[in-house]
Amino acid sequence: MNDIQIGLIGFGNIGAGVVKLLRENADVIRGKVGVGIVLKRIADLDITTDRGVPVDAGVLTTSVDDIFNDPDISVVIELVGGYEPAKSFVLKAIEKGKHIVTANKALLALHGTEIYAAADRKGVEVQFEAAVGGGIPVLTAIKGNLAANNVTSVFGIMNGTCNYILTRMTQEGADFTAMLQVAQQLGYAEPDPTFDVEGVDTAHKLAVLISLCFGTRIDFKDIYTEGISRISALDVKFAAQFGYRIKLLAIGKCVDGVIEARVHPTMIPLDSPLADINGVFNAIRLSGDFVGPVMFSGRGAGQNPTASAIVGDLIGLSRSMKAGAGRRMAPLGFLDDQITTLPVKPMSEMVSKYLLRFSALDKPGVLAAITGSLGTHGISIESMVQTARESADAAAVPIVIMTHEAREGAVLAALAETDRCDFICEATRFIRIEDNLE
Amino acid sequence: MNDIQIGLIGFGNIGAGVVKLLRENADVIRGKVGVGIVLKRIADLDITTDRGVPVDAGVLTTSVDDIFNDPDISVVIELVGGYEPAKSFVLKAIEKGKHIVTANKALLALHGTEIYAAADRKGVEVQFEAAVGGGIPVLTAIKGNLAANNVTSVFGIMNGTCNYILTRMTQEGADFTAMLQVAQQLGYAEPDPTFDVEGVDTAHKLAVLISLCFGTRIDFKDIYTEGISRISALDVKFAAQFGYRIKLLAIGKCVDGVIEARVHPTMIPLDSPLADINGVFNAIRLSGDFVGPVMFSGRGAGQNPTASAIVGDLIGLSRSMKAGAGRRMAPLGFLDDQITTLPVKPMSEMVSKYLLRFSALDKPGVLAAITGSLGTHGISIESMVQTARESADAAAVPIVIMTHEAREGAVLAALAETDRCDFICEATRFIRIEDNLE
Repeated sequence: MNDIQIGLIGFGNIGAGVVKLLRENADVIRGKVGVGIVLKRIADLDITTDRGVPVDAGVLTTSVDDIFNDPDISVVIELVGGYEPAKSFVLKAIEKGKHIVTANKALLALHGTEIYAAADRKGVEVQFEAAVGGGIPVLTAIKGNLAANNVTSVFGIMNGTCNYILTRMTQEGADFTAMLQVAQQLGYAEPDPTFDVEGVDTAHKLAVLISLCFGTRIDFKDIYTEGISRISALDVKFAAQFGYRIKLLAIGKCVDGVIEARVHPTMIPLDSPLADINGVFNAIRLSGDFVGPVMFSGRGAGQNPTASAIVGDLIGLSRSMKAGAGRRMAPLGFLDDQITTLPVKPMSEMVSKYLLRFSALDKPGVLAAITGSLGTHGISIESMVQTARESADAAAVPIVIMTHEAREGAVLAALAETDRCDFICEATRFIRIEDNLE
Repeated sequence: MNDIQIGLIGFGNIGAGVVKLLRENADVIRGKVGVGIVLKRIADLDITTDRGVPVDAGVLTTSVDDIFNDPDISVVIELVGGYEPAKSFVLKAIEKGKHIVTANKALLALHGTEIYAAADRKGVEVQFEAAVGGGIPVLTAIKGNLAANNVTSVFGIMNGTCNYILTRMTQEGADFTAMLQVAQQLGYAEPDPTFDVEGVDTAHKLAVLISLCFGTRIDFKDIYTEGISRISALDVKFAAQFGYRIKLLAIGKCVDGVIEARVHPTMIPLDSPLADINGVFNAIRLSGDFVGPVMFSGRGAGQNPTASAIVGDLIGLSRSMKAGAGRRMAPLGFLDDQITTLPVKPMSEMVSKYLLRFSALDKPGVLAAITGSLGTHGISIESMVQTARESADAAAVPIVIMTHEAREGAVLAALAETDRCDFICEATRFIRIEDNLE
């Protein structure tokens, strides 16, 4: 059998990593597939910038049609990123009967359904291990060896930028803005960090995981998404005082056919398996009805780990082609006609413990008013800390309350009530607490 | 296409788990494969004991030939365990052109080469995700999505019995024998626990991992294997005093084409990712040249997790068959003709840090003699603790020395020398230390 011919669209940092890996480990790959995997064409608008990897003459092109119209190319890697023209490219490649490998979580989160349907019609595969957790082979595991399980939950740390910033804030007692700047200087955060720090990238990944784990479509707008930009050094300090660490978690659950889907800063106990996932590392944990809890961790981003996942997908597809298989697996593991649309629980119905940080005037009756309001809304208190003023000239004192489990709707109603009182100096901060994520 | 028909040999605890999973999650499995996976025959010498799962009439048989000679059966699950008759059954099934799924690490560790060669000749697959780490899908990941990497190391906690005993010893300051008894009472340890506590089971798993990761045959006898039965409460206490925890690790490395393969109690720093893998949990960590470090953890044994891995293998094979593929992957991920026989580094050449625990008479000159002997053999000391006698009537005091990195051969030579001295009361204990396993 001949070598497997690949087309790559998008020759940026990750694309260069794929070129490097296919070249440096060509022998390893050939030794596992039996034929070579050859990048026949690379399309990018900019084909003059030196990407730091050698490319054979005639490979680079500015025209994606050179890839679409090449009958020898059986797999197209999409590394353009974003929604358009990535979506058009992917649909065009599918239309031409080519398998797709992509790292584009934003595209899959918003347009996955359309792309998967097109791939189903044409009988091609769509693989996207690199879309979640960089090189960590978690999606392949969920679709593959864990496929016999009913998955009940999936959660984790899926954005290296946020985890790096939170780790440094924890280690140094520093504020968000200062540590964001450090992350930017080190190249761990983009010049415009919004997608990462506001949780959007994490929510994209959660959308992909929820579809894979629960076999459901999910409207991206239904994922509650809150980032870390409002987390302060004070939040981190109080969390530690209660025995917790703050992490940006993506949390997906499926209980009685109802989906929970949320991304937000979360306090987790210091002895939680996720508490020690630090820096740019990612970790994804899931529970299946037979396998129980399983956790995967590793480098969640970067040129080399991402290339590892992309070329891993290529190897899988190449093995199937070489074995004479047609389409071996639908994009989500489930057959396409099995994908349903499960309802998503409104955030107000979500039940969690909360850390509430009130900024209140230090005068009689304040605590009674706050706790009274919580009680009225059925929220009971697990513990409380009231500390002295942060500085002598501060008007307000922080009152920190940890609640028992409560409905989010009740918590928001109670806080809306207390925040209207004249003894409350600023909007009350709250952070959700997960003691027993499984 | 018709349902995939399976034969199961060995109807014990794990076999019953497979029956249960195939029955309870039949819809999930059908929804991912497109056809059903049906257990057509189950062979066991004992078909009268109630296994707690319902089995259709006509499925049970005492004759394995009913499976071998059934042309409808395309996959055989071997759950007999041990070497024989498991090996004969597997070879016979291969000879009959059937794919193999097995959880039998002992068989693969000692007879894998022969089995893989037979499977190669007949063009069938051999899958064995359940052989290492129970339900943790680590082997599929190594063979699959991580396949583009040169793996440089693989290590981890792979025996739940040992990890449970060591965890309890650490938590309670108890001795090995007492905690073994607890493990036996809870069913975590066999009545004859030798295979587990002496590290043999872990070494079987390491043999499998080394072949998968480095594409090499390994003679099982070349794996240095030391269990936990000699670890005492005192060892655990001193380890903690130096900031370490003792775990039974399997360690495999490939450096410049030479294999390191060893199983032994190992002191790892408290902040190591493996230090918090407690109780019956397993964790496997590996490093690839592109993916970097990746870690997998979960339940390493038990009926349900093991069934998850076995049925996961069945789903993979079924998908390939349904897609019209012949043999999609060789057993080790590498094509069979790519498997080499790399040399194994002798244990005496292995370099590690060591914790040495001398039991010496409390008299002048002892410390000078010990440190002198270490110095003569080129072993330098990182830190030292000498404590008071354990009890007033004890003749000996423990002298505990942590070395810098040293060759094992040099350490053994030095200890042979000091242990001959009349001030040494019992054979000196040593535990290897891994500060930076990657």
